[in-house]
Amino acid sequence: MTDRKPTAIYERRESQARSYCRAFPVSFTRARNAALTDSAGRDYTDFLAGCSSLNYGHNDADMKTALIEHLDRDGVTHGLDMHTDAKAAFLETFERLILQPRGMEHKVMFTGPTGTNAVEAAMKLARKTTGRETIIAFTNGFHGMTMGALAATGNAGKRAGAGMALSGVVRMPYEGALEGVDSLAMIRAMLDNPSSGIDAPAAFLIEPVQGEGGLNAASKEFLQGVQALARDHGALVIMDDIQAGIGRTGPFFSFEEMGVMPDLIPLAKSLSGMGLPMAALLIRPDLDIWKPAEHNGTFRGNNHAFVTARVALKKFWSDDRFQRATAEKSAYLTERLGAMAAHVPGATLKGRGMMQGIDLGSGEMAAAVCATCFEHGLIIETSGAEDEVVKVLAPLTIPQAQFAAGLDILDTAIRAHVAPQSIAAE
Amino acid sequence: MTDRKPTAIYERRESQARSYCRAFPVSFTRARNAALTDSAGRDYTDFLAGCSSLNYGHNDADMKTALIEHLDRDGVTHGLDMHTDAKAAFLETFERLILQPRGMEHKVMFTGPTGTNAVEAAMKLARKTTGRETIIAFTNGFHGMTMGALAATGNAGKRAGAGMALSGVVRMPYEGALEGVDSLAMIRAMLDNPSSGIDAPAAFLIEPVQGEGGLNAASKEFLQGVQALARDHGALVIMDDIQAGIGRTGPFFSFEEMGVMPDLIPLAKSLSGMGLPMAALLIRPDLDIWKPAEHNGTFRGNNHAFVTARVALKKFWSDDRFQRATAEKSAYLTERLGAMAAHVPGATLKGRGMMQGIDLGSGEMAAAVCATCFEHGLIIETSGAEDEVVKVLAPLTIPQAQFAAGLDILDTAIRAHVAPQSIAAE
Amino acid sequence: MTDRKPTAIYERRESQARSYCRAFPVSFTRARNAALTDSAGRDYTDFLAGCSSLNYGHNDADMKTALIEHLDRDGVTHGLDMHTDAKAAFLETFERLILQPRGMEHKVMFTGPTGTNAVEAAMKLARKTTGRETIIAFTNGFHGMTMGALAATGNAGKRAGAGMALSGVVRMPYEGALEGVDSLAMIRAMLDNPSSGIDAPAAFLIEPVQGEGGLNAASKEFLQGVQALARDHGALVIMDDIQAGIGRTGPFFSFEEMGVMPDLIPLAKSLSGMGLPMAALLIRPDLDIWKPAEHNGTFRGNNHAFVTARVALKKFWSDDRFQRATAEKSAYLTERLGAMAAHVPGATLKGRGMMQGIDLGSGEMAAAVCATCFEHGLIIETSGAEDEVVKVLAPLTIPQAQFAAGLDILDTAIRAHVAPQSIAAE
Amino acid sequence: MTDRKPTAIYERRESQARSYCRAFPVSFTRARNAALTDSAGRDYTDFLAGCSSLNYGHNDADMKTALIEHLDRDGVTHGLDMHTDAKAAFLETFERLILQPRGMEHKVMFTGPTGTNAVEAAMKLARKTTGRETIIAFTNGFHGMTMGALAATGNAGKRAGAGMALSGVVRMPYEGALEGVDSLAMIRAMLDNPSSGIDAPAAFLIEPVQGEGGLNAASKEFLQGVQALARDHGALVIMDDIQAGIGRTGPFFSFEEMGVMPDLIPLAKSLSGMGLPMAALLIRPDLDIWKPAEHNGTFRGNNHAFVTARVALKKFWSDDRFQRATAEKSAYLTERLGAMAAHVPGATLKGRGMMQGIDLGSGEMAAAVCATCFEHGLIIETSGAEDEVVKVLAPLTIPQAQFAAGLDILDTAIRAHVAPQSIAAE
Repeated sequence: MTDRKPTAIYERRESQARSYCRAFPVSFTRARNAALTDSAGRDYTDFLAGCSSLNYGHNDADMKTALIEHLDRDGVTHGLDMHTDAKAAFLETFERLILQPRGMEHKVMFTGPTGTNAVEAAMKLARKTTGRETIIAFTNGFHGMTMGALAATGNAGKRAGAGMALSGVVRMPYEGALEGVDSLAMIRAMLDNPSSGIDAPAAFLIEPVQGEGGLNAASKEFLQGVQALARDHGALVIMDDIQAGIGRTGPFFSFEEMGVMPDLIPLAKSLSGMGLPMAALLIRPDLDIWKPAEHNGTFRGNNHAFVTARVALKKFWSDDRFQRATAEKSAYLTERLGAMAAHVPGATLKGRGMMQGIDLGSGEMAAAVCATCFEHGLIIETSGAEDEVVKVLAPLTIPQAQFAAGLDILDTAIRAHVAPQSIAAE
Repeated sequence: MTDRKPTAIYERRESQARSYCRAFPVSFTRARNAALTDSAGRDYTDFLAGCSSLNYGHNDADMKTALIEHLDRDGVTHGLDMHTDAKAAFLETFERLILQPRGMEHKVMFTGPTGTNAVEAAMKLARKTTGRETIIAFTNGFHGMTMGALAATGNAGKRAGAGMALSGVVRMPYEGALEGVDSLAMIRAMLDNPSSGIDAPAAFLIEPVQGEGGLNAASKEFLQGVQALARDHGALVIMDDIQAGIGRTGPFFSFEEMGVMPDLIPLAKSLSGMGLPMAALLIRPDLDIWKPAEHNGTFRGNNHAFVTARVALKKFWSDDRFQRATAEKSAYLTERLGAMAAHVPGATLKGRGMMQGIDLGSGEMAAAVCATCFEHGLIIETSGAEDEVVKVLAPLTIPQAQFAAGLDILDTAIRAHVAPQSIAAE
Repeated sequence: MTDRKPTAIYERRESQARSYCRAFPVSFTRARNAALTDSAGRDYTDFLAGCSSLNYGHNDADMKTALIEHLDRDGVTHGLDMHTDAKAAFLETFERLILQPRGMEHKVMFTGPTGTNAVEAAMKLARKTTGRETIIAFTNGFHGMTMGALAATGNAGKRAGAGMALSGVVRMPYEGALEGVDSLAMIRAMLDNPSSGIDAPAAFLIEPVQGEGGLNAASKEFLQGVQALARDHGALVIMDDIQAGIGRTGPFFSFEEMGVMPDLIPLAKSLSGMGLPMAALLIRPDLDIWKPAEHNGTFRGNNHAFVTARVALKKFWSDDRFQRATAEKSAYLTERLGAMAAHVPGATLKGRGMMQGIDLGSGEMAAAVCATCFEHGLIIETSGAEDEVVKVLAPLTIPQAQFAAGLDILDTAIRAHVAPQSIAAE
Repeated sequence: MTDRKPTAIYERRESQARSYCRAFPVSFTRARNAALTDSAGRDYTDFLAGCSSLNYGHNDADMKTALIEHLDRDGVTHGLDMHTDAKAAFLETFERLILQPRGMEHKVMFTGPTGTNAVEAAMKLARKTTGRETIIAFTNGFHGMTMGALAATGNAGKRAGAGMALSGVVRMPYEGALEGVDSLAMIRAMLDNPSSGIDAPAAFLIEPVQGEGGLNAASKEFLQGVQALARDHGALVIMDDIQAGIGRTGPFFSFEEMGVMPDLIPLAKSLSGMGLPMAALLIRPDLDIWKPAEHNGTFRGNNHAFVTARVALKKFWSDDRFQRATAEKSAYLTERLGAMAAHVPGATLKGRGMMQGIDLGSGEMAAAVCATCFEHGLIIETSGAEDEVVKVLAPLTIPQAQFAAGLDILDTAIRAHVAPQSIAAE
């Protein structure tokens, strides 16, 4: 780099749309599992994990080895949607280790390699198969930035980016979104009333745990209620498991122990295992009425991702050890965050599994806590409508000692930002 | 693979949306430059090149080496939009070799790594900055499959996938789309008439060469006319250079020698150099009014792509040798295709640079020609509203002998499918 | 008539869209105040009153006289929006008797002479003045059949008539629409949450009493709450007083004693006094930013209606006698309907003023009751999402004896349709 | 009136949306046939005729008599859509004198009594019956101000009133709208190209003569071409005959001698005969799939209009004398306007039948001409995208001498505003 200031090139040439780099204004050069190293050689613990794209950590050794081997032998890199050995091997492994054991007959659609693309494919297919337009999405939902998915995203700032009205989506309150209101009963009443003005829905689009929306975790009863409501009204259930899936809450799918089976499941983020762009839509087979190329995309055959995704499945999902380890780490996380929340008047614990956090009640305080953490070598971010939730999204593979140390940094930062009188009152 | 039939897994588990694999029902295992090898060890010449995502061929040795080195040293793979050495190096190289020499002040926005995402970002930004909604797109335009970009895509089959009406786009004829009609004059007349019912546009969205739409290449006059029209009506010009850019027509941008300078330029496909998912939107700096994260995406920091893209820029764009070589190949291609077209009554030459083809006047004949080519080891596809254009999209790096041999296969296939009396009449 | 069957011409030539005539299959020839006479000379009492278009009864003698005098002297009939003596006289009278006494600075906009047109003008103006698109409308709301107003109408059957998606409206529960849910608190929570996905509204569009929606009458607190919410969020309040206004609930405007002052007030139905087509939008003066003819319409200068409307204002609104008489009739109606409802298990009283009814809990029973009434010479209709409410909309001018006799018929009909055991249980 | 200035009440209380009254700032008190009288007793000749709502002139004596008789005997004034003797008599007369002689099986739907409402009903029905959304409308088309019809209206000023994007309509050039372009061939080419991006249309919505759009009269060939195109593409033809119908061009329907038969025909303006609000949609019987009340409206049973409309049909359409008289007046008008146009360099004759005018090439000059006419007692207005066409819309019943005198005023006014050198050059 010829710039004195490592960020000069970004100021000169990168769009203002950039964001995370503003909170972490260093340049990273190396990464392994839960550790990042910057250009000055300083190490950081990563509690952001690519927003849950790095559930298995950075640069897993086995995935790296497989990818280098693939490169060495000139394996196909870019294959459009053509058959390749890497694609077949991924599909067979996904069928054997994920779909079959869970009794899922779903078809796999490789969409453009972004979560938003998988969500758009789901919304399109729901509309096509039902002949209806309305998708019911939920408060604080986050589904992507392209126009179809953005219509289903709740965040006002993101929506403003559209520059035009977003259509085709009706908004309903997520579980617990309205104090004292049974969201499910309310939605049912609206749908049962033929004069409510809510058109018959094509689908419900829901995240079992809302990652960006503030770590709101729906209960079994709520998810089952949504599914029942959908069945009663001839609508599909799309469960967007992009952030909460691929083991983040313990099981492979975040809805696995909830007694539901979605019709359409968008996946992305940690699907490739190594953070490479990859997305898929799982489709109940009778709904797979796509015509060839009706939804296509240049990069839907990212063979590097097929390679690393296959390794990830074999390494982590051949038995239940990984899932059990995640459960243990989750319990530890609950305990530690619970203790921290106890320091802060009004703070509450949010989330489920390895996507938990503390609602500090204020976006300013949450930002201050994260900034302090960064000063002490911990990368951590906020979520929620007001960015009021400090969110722990560590790699599931993080060593226990590093996990504990990271949580220590967070604990200290929170204590530092709680008003002295509150501490005193403890 | 445990299946006897190599495609059984796809029939069992892949969505019906898959397409190219239907025309090329083998499994590819290796790829180098313009050659693909299937699981039976058979070699193919690739005249499809990932739909122009592989302008530098498959698995370029230098890119591979750089990527393996990056992997070996645990370089960051997935970095959200955080600063990394690989990102900075790419940006600096892009600035130095591409933007500065062309006098472009544009900012670079890394969108989700798909072309459709870059197009959506452009459409959103055009609407935001102008406060207008209407985007003028063109007949036979192809811009992507997500709802915003799909609204601008002309193909009826793709549009049907939406399952709902697509809004915000007004359609105008591309140059030459209507026999005997001066498209530009017509558009101007419609915009100048305050009672035409065409609302003042936010932008014109145009491909300098329409890849999917049938290799329609706009003239200098047309592109300049569109730009002038946009300026006169307070609208922006978005040139979608996803398929035609990155050297495909000779210069880095397909509009370079056209005397125009677009306000917004979506790039993808060959941007990463090696076919890895990567997309960007170039933004005239005063239009870069995005708020942080107003358009975001998990995979917009695909560092592997930054690495290979940097190598590609240095290797191919440090001087004008590559561009000149492409010009030579293009001239050869024009000559060969011209000779072939002469065999076929009514056939016409389409396209520009290394994206040329022959309009055979019939989708059936074009499909038959491609099928025959595949039998003889040549991978080639069609484009156009009726799939009537056989499209040559060879890697720009294809060795001359292999290029000639591939064209020989095409020539033979065309002759085989032309009615005997036509040949006789020759 | 040459047809034997008086309705043959309708079967032959009128569209299936016709509706009321199906329930009352006779041909009416004369009408005076609350009485209708059919071609066989049979008299009927009118408890439908043109759906509240005939608040002063049929063919009021003074209005008739004035209209005949106007015709006799060749007064202008159709005047576009040009100045006429009839128009000036109406405006001056409306200003003097209605606007000034109520401290209203509103401007009067004569829209096309239908309620839906006045609603559309209000929605357009709300969007223009705020620069926002979303109108918040309510469950069971009814605002008209043209595309803008229809988007705000709740009824699924009416909405289905659109043949396409209706946009620009977000639906919220009316007061009491959801059992146990404080609608106002819920709406506030949705609007206060920046990630709710509800865009900042241009306006709230609400009927103080929902006529078609089942005679749901909002409380003072609810209407004030909606107004406060609107003020807090920079939105306007449109109170659609088309059915409930012009004295139907007692005062001229149905919101008069509610402690609110709407920004925009669509009026129609009884505005002309005699049932002639006439509509107007009252506009808070600073919002009157229309450009000349920006919303126009051929029949917005129906001078016959100006004549009769002026007479109606002078006759009924020069002092408070009419309003007091309506209050007395309303009290009588409440008493009589209360007694009837007591016969029917689960039945509830609905509405306010002279727009009250009984919710019989079943559309079938309500239809049967109305049919029996018709057999006994009473014209009465249902409303509500399931047509479950028998609705009394008598002319406000109905003589007390006739009113009582009509209610007797209704009482008897209800008793006839209540299951014997229910009567026994009384 | 207590105001000194007769227009004070309007300035105080009428919305800025008012328009015609600005050009004619007097107060009209009486009207008979083609004459209007203001409050100062001054007479004017009416070449505006309620924008073609007064084809039979103001206050026709026979219609007046019938209406007064109806009022005297307490005939039903407002009847919702119930059967009345007045409605039956109108329908029977319309069937006998209009539909049967022209071999039309169409059903009559009484919509809300505005042209825009009839157009909306047509658009809704076209979408419902075809299951498609897109309506193809034409440059310079004018169809109304409610959101559905406004989407089909071309005028930018009117469209701006919507305050939001208007959807569901694709715009095509009217005959002759684009110099040197065959509109029909262009539309066909766009629809025949499956990648044009124009979705399959539900209907074509066209005015046989564009009244507001500048008196553009489509040829027989164009209208037949549109009908053929519609048939070929499974679309309906909606001919909006609101301004050009009811005798304005000679025959009852303006398309009568064109060799076409529309599927849906919105009528309004002169339908009631006397300028009373009335509208109807004629529906090809197999398309009449409305459910009862699926499109309804309070004032669709304006019985006063049924009475006058019946008289009008009997008086003017029992034989062909009226039509022949109109043809003679039209020929005279053509001759006179042709002579006037010859004075003005570049001026052209526009329109057909008794809706003809002169395109003066400039809105300023046209406005000046109309203002001068008004000073000399002639009420006349402009039309066209730039208000550049002075439009003669005299009552068809205007006495020949008055017609000639009115045209003399126009002739003089035009000469007065043509630059002296132009006159000299004559």
